[in-house]
Amino acid sequence: MQRVSIKDVAKEAGVSASTVSYVLNNSPTESISAETRKRVMAAVQKLGYVPNLNARSLSSRRSNLIGVLIPQTEPGKEFMFSNPFYGELLSAIEYTARQHGYHLLLSGTQEDQGYANVARNRGVDGIIIVGTYPGESLNELKRMGVPIVLVDSYVTDDAFHTIGIEDKEGARMATRYLIGKGHQSIAFISGSIRENGVNMKRYQGYCDALREAGLTPDEGAIYSGTVDYEYGLTAARQYLDRGRRQTAAFITADVLSMGFVKGLRQQGVCVPEDISIVSFDDVYLANMAYPSLTTVHQDIGEKGRKAVELILEAAQAKEHRHTECILPLRLVERDSVREWRKSDD
Amino acid sequence: MQRVSIKDVAKEAGVSASTVSYVLNNSPTESISAETRKRVMAAVQKLGYVPNLNARSLSSRRSNLIGVLIPQTEPGKEFMFSNPFYGELLSAIEYTARQHGYHLLLSGTQEDQGYANVARNRGVDGIIIVGTYPGESLNELKRMGVPIVLVDSYVTDDAFHTIGIEDKEGARMATRYLIGKGHQSIAFISGSIRENGVNMKRYQGYCDALREAGLTPDEGAIYSGTVDYEYGLTAARQYLDRGRRQTAAFITADVLSMGFVKGLRQQGVCVPEDISIVSFDDVYLANMAYPSLTTVHQDIGEKGRKAVELILEAAQAKEHRHTECILPLRLVERDSVREWRKSDD
Repeated sequence: MQRVSIKDVAKEAGVSASTVSYVLNNSPTESISAETRKRVMAAVQKLGYVPNLNARSLSSRRSNLIGVLIPQTEPGKEFMFSNPFYGELLSAIEYTARQHGYHLLLSGTQEDQGYANVARNRGVDGIIIVGTYPGESLNELKRMGVPIVLVDSYVTDDAFHTIGIEDKEGARMATRYLIGKGHQSIAFISGSIRENGVNMKRYQGYCDALREAGLTPDEGAIYSGTVDYEYGLTAARQYLDRGRRQTAAFITADVLSMGFVKGLRQQGVCVPEDISIVSFDDVYLANMAYPSLTTVHQDIGEKGRKAVELILEAAQAKEHRHTECILPLRLVERDSVREWRKSDD
Repeated sequence: MQRVSIKDVAKEAGVSASTVSYVLNNSPTESISAETRKRVMAAVQKLGYVPNLNARSLSSRRSNLIGVLIPQTEPGKEFMFSNPFYGELLSAIEYTARQHGYHLLLSGTQEDQGYANVARNRGVDGIIIVGTYPGESLNELKRMGVPIVLVDSYVTDDAFHTIGIEDKEGARMATRYLIGKGHQSIAFISGSIRENGVNMKRYQGYCDALREAGLTPDEGAIYSGTVDYEYGLTAARQYLDRGRRQTAAFITADVLSMGFVKGLRQQGVCVPEDISIVSFDDVYLANMAYPSLTTVHQDIGEKGRKAVELILEAAQAKEHRHTECILPLRLVERDSVREWRKSDD
C-alpha cells in the first residue's frame, strides 16, 4: 500500500506538485490565486494528505525525535522490562517528550549491535541512554554531534551530559540504617558488579558503612547475579545453602528483593522476622509487596523528565556545555526491617 | 549543534555534494574515479557521516519505523505503565521489531490529541494501537493507507487487522472456576466498563457463568474504576463498606488484584482465607505477589510478536486482506483461591 503523496494531491487538484508545495508552505515568493489555493486545500482534505515530516526535517535539520536506548547489558536478556524501573523511567520520558511535541525512537539495542547506527540513521535530535558503560559504541555516538544524556552511568567524558544519583551514598545510607537497627552481619545482593557500574558504587557504599561501624566486609556475604526476579529466587537458595549467616540484607533493586522474599518464604523463612531487608529504587512494586519494602527512594519520574529537558536545552544551546545532574535520595521506612537484639542470635 | 551533513563531507573531500551522493549510492549512471571514491570514503570515515535515512525514506517510501500507540484512555493518566501489562507487551513488540531491522516510534498520545497526526507526520510503515475504541481519530488513521493492527480492541472494521483474546470466554472460565470451588456470591472488579471495551466483554462472560450456574448477577457486587493499583485499594474499601457480601472476586487485571489484596490486608482480611480471587493477564506480578495469584493467563509476549509480524506481512502484501488473530487463554492455579463450603458461611 502507498501513502498519499504530494503528486496525488496535485493530480486531484489539477495543478503541479510544486504548486501544492507552494500552497502548503505559504511560500512568499510565489503568487497563487485564491481559487487555486482553495482547490489544493480541498484535495488535501479529501485525500487526507499531511506533509511528510521526514522531508521537512531535511531542510530544518530537526526531526523532533529523541532516541531512547535501553541497552540490555545482561547477555541473553530479550526484554527491557524485567525490571519495572525501566518501565517507569520510560513512561516519564515519553510523557515529558510528548508535552514538548517530541516523539521517542525506542530501542533496546545491545551494545554489540551498535547503537550508533540506529541513532544516526534516524537523524534524532538527541539521545538518552540508560545505564551504559564506556566503550567503542559510545565513542561512535559522540561523533554524531547531537546532545547525548547518559542516565545512571559512570562514564566520565564531558561530551556527554549525565543524570544520576549518588549510588555509593545511597548504599551507605541503607547499610547504616540496618546497622542502626542492631544488625552486625549484612548480606549484599545485586546484579553483576562491573567496573564503572552502578552496582560497584553501591558495593563500595555498603563496604564503607560496614567499616565505619568497625565491621569487616565478608566475601561470603556477597550475592551477585542479574537484576531480575529470578535471580532474587536464586539468591535466596544460595543464602540458605550458605547457612543463613546474615540477619539482614542490602539488596540493590526492589525487583531482586521481590524474588528474594519469595524464595525465602517457600522455605519457611520470613521477612522481617528471620531476616531484614533494605532495597533500592522504590518502584511501585516496593509498596505493593508483602511485606512492603523499606527501600532507598529515588525519583524515577524526575530522572526521566530531566533527561528530556537536558536534551531540549542542549539542542537549543549555541555551544556544548557539559551538564551533570545528581538527584537526591532518601530512605523510605516500610515493613521489611525489624530491630535485632543480641538475644536474637 | 549541527550533525555532519553531506556538504561537510564534500568540503572535506574537496568534491561536490552530488559526487558524494553518487559515491554513497553506488550510482550506476555516473563514473567516478577510484581515487575520488577513496577520498570521499576517507572523509565519510573521518567525520563519522552516515546517510540520513529520513532522506532515503522519501524515495523508497519506507521508513522502517513502526508506530506504537498506547493511548491513555483513562483521563488524567500520565503514564502508560501503571499497568505492567503494557510494559511487557511493549518489550515483546520492541524485541521483535528490532530483529527485523525496525524501530519503534512510541507515543502515549491521548485520543483527544489525535494520533493520526503523530503517525502520519512521521511516515511510519505501520501502526500498532493498543486498546482503543471506535472514534474519529481512528477513522483518520484509516485514510493513511498504512497497515494498522489493533491489539485488544473490539472495533469492527475490516480496514484494521486485529489481535486479541476471547475476553468474554476468559471471564466465564474464571467465574466458573470460582463457582466450581463452591462460591455462590462473586464480586466483579474492573476498570471502566465501556461499550465495545474489553471490560464489557469480561463483564458479560462473568454474568454468563453466573446464569449458567443458576445464580443471579447482583448490581451490588460490581466494582468499577480504573485499571491500576490505587483503584484496587479503593475497591477493597468499598467491599468492606458494603459489608463483605461476597466470598470471592473475579478481578479483570492482576495489578488491580495487587491493590485489592493489600487494601484488605490492611484491614485484617486475608486472601484466600476470607475471600478468594481469580484475576486476569498473568503479568509477572501475578507470580511475585503474596499470595501468588490464580489468574487467566494470556500470552503477552506472543501478542507483541504477532502484532509486529502482522504489520510486516501487511506491508509486503499487494492488497489489503483483513486478518484477525485470537490467542488462546488458560487458567493458572496458584494460591489465591480456597474451596468454600456451606459450613463456612
